[in-house]
Amino acid sequence: MFFEGAEKKLEIRLTSNMASLRQREYGFWSTLVACANAEILSIIRNPACDAYLLSESSLFVWDDKILLLTCGNSTLIEAACYFINALGVEHIAALCYQRKNEYQAQLQSTHFADDIAKLRTLIPGKAFRVGHLDSHHHYLFCTDNLFCTDGQPMSSTYDTCLELMMYHIRGELADYLKSPTQTEQGIYQRLGLQRIFPDFQFDMHCFQPAGFSLNGIRGADYVTLHITPSIGPGDNSYVSFETNLDLAVYPYPLVAQMIKLFMPSSWDLIRFNQSLMTAGFPEHVCLAHGSIVTEQGCQIDFNHYQQLQTEELLPVFL
Amino acid sequence: MFFEGAEKKLEIRLTSNMASLRQREYGFWSTLVACANAEILSIIRNPACDAYLLSESSLFVWDDKILLLTCGNSTLIEAACYFINALGVEHIAALCYQRKNEYQAQLQSTHFADDIAKLRTLIPGKAFRVGHLDSHHHYLFCTDNLFCTDGQPMSSTYDTCLELMMYHIRGELADYLKSPTQTEQGIYQRLGLQRIFPDFQFDMHCFQPAGFSLNGIRGADYVTLHITPSIGPGDNSYVSFETNLDLAVYPYPLVAQMIKLFMPSSWDLIRFNQSLMTAGFPEHVCLAHGSIVTEQGCQIDFNHYQQLQTEELLPVFL
Repeated sequence: MFFEGAEKKLEIRLTSNMASLRQREYGFWSTLVACANAEILSIIRNPACDAYLLSESSLFVWDDKILLLTCGNSTLIEAACYFINALGVEHIAALCYQRKNEYQAQLQSTHFADDIAKLRTLIPGKAFRVGHLDSHHHYLFCTDNLFCTDGQPMSSTYDTCLELMMYHIRGELADYLKSPTQTEQGIYQRLGLQRIFPDFQFDMHCFQPAGFSLNGIRGADYVTLHITPSIGPGDNSYVSFETNLDLAVYPYPLVAQMIKLFMPSSWDLIRFNQSLMTAGFPEHVCLAHGSIVTEQGCQIDFNHYQQLQTEELLPVFL
Repeated sequence: MFFEGAEKKLEIRLTSNMASLRQREYGFWSTLVACANAEILSIIRNPACDAYLLSESSLFVWDDKILLLTCGNSTLIEAACYFINALGVEHIAALCYQRKNEYQAQLQSTHFADDIAKLRTLIPGKAFRVGHLDSHHHYLFCTDNLFCTDGQPMSSTYDTCLELMMYHIRGELADYLKSPTQTEQGIYQRLGLQRIFPDFQFDMHCFQPAGFSLNGIRGADYVTLHITPSIGPGDNSYVSFETNLDLAVYPYPLVAQMIKLFMPSSWDLIRFNQSLMTAGFPEHVCLAHGSIVTEQGCQIDFNHYQQLQTEELLPVFL
């Protein structure tokens, strides 16, 4: 009755001397995602990026980079090891592996400590947790700065990225997402994405009994949105939104718009080289903030927010 | 390197036709606590109550009632089953089993769902969770209203009780509790308990490498305090305080005093038939509140608080 919406995330950048990843055949990608216990549902492409919608989230492939997100009880770490071994560790310029705050960590087949022990047999890196264990927290592993034979770093900074995790959604859209009458187009229209992402190409999928995934690409830019309405007792609803758009110059306040749509009782932001903009947020309290600068010079910020008013809890009978 | 401070709690009241529990010999109680993977360290007694300090928390025994608290990876549910079988389920008037918000639920040998499945093979009851899984939450099982053959309820309301759980302690006392120079008397003096509990008899113990437990009794009244300073990376410090004193009439603001001493970044209150008094609290936000009235007419309230200012998180390297 429970589905873990919280994603694990893998980002790998190759060294510059490699053939484009986008030339690899379908079988490579289907095997990769199968390692994580996921499968490919559909693909959209443009000249810079291929976006795969998966049974459990998303895969984006650029010439020299992949981004793989998986939710549920997926084994993303197996996909990471498969990719490193298939490409050869000497061709990995940078790797970043994340686990978001899970509702039920004890139901996962591995924990972050297991995952990084496995990763470190292949590639060195720093791992850390930001956030207390009894509140929202996130795990991150980043490879050490790797250098080419000419002494130049293999990868400079990470791209910009923003991850928004929303917990316990409410309001009109949340109600619609729990209703049996929901449709793919119904959700898409209510999200109003055509307005805030006017030049994007979209791919989406409605899951049974509930759930909605969407990928969008425009050149090398991507957005991805995954909705896990609550199944079973208690409200474990979860929505994630992620993009590499630079929000400091993007003409729409995307984060505020998402929070307005889903009305989560709490939400987290993880920013990679992104400035913070809270304009348009509902009345809130920032419960916690943490930041770190990686060896590669990437500034990572974590913020945990909750709506300002006390949340009235209903007992969940078990 | 990690020790789970959060307690499991068992409270059992017998039917009125039973011999006093306090006549039972030492071997019964040592076997009972051994079922939970704990052992008896010391005992204090008065004409109404026996208080056992345990290797993992506390046991209080009255003529017709027990209260057993255990922390760490203890198996309190086994002690519950042992007690029910030893006394006979027909002599149990009321039973309440709780699990507090754990830092690392995945390290526990059982989860609440396992525990209540086992309990329900012996005795019927309602179980529920208050609080979202991604924030502070508490589990409670209470037996259904049981009736004697004359139609009278076996037990009327529960006694009054207040449980205070404090997370991430700071300040002078917190620093002292992490220092190697700490002593039992040093902690006792700094707590100032002789002032706020002037007529109580105390028993206390300092653990290695860290930790402090204290029981206090005065007639049928009890207080119990358990301190788990953080061991290992990250701040997982935890302090619990519990009492059956009626705080509406007690002359000292005990909860505010405890929060002032330990300066936790967040704290929870679980109140059983206790009114709420927040006078003397530091600037805070009440993040969540939930309440329930049991079949026996016991009003249970749960409040989750955090200090008002944003907590600045330090990354924990793994």
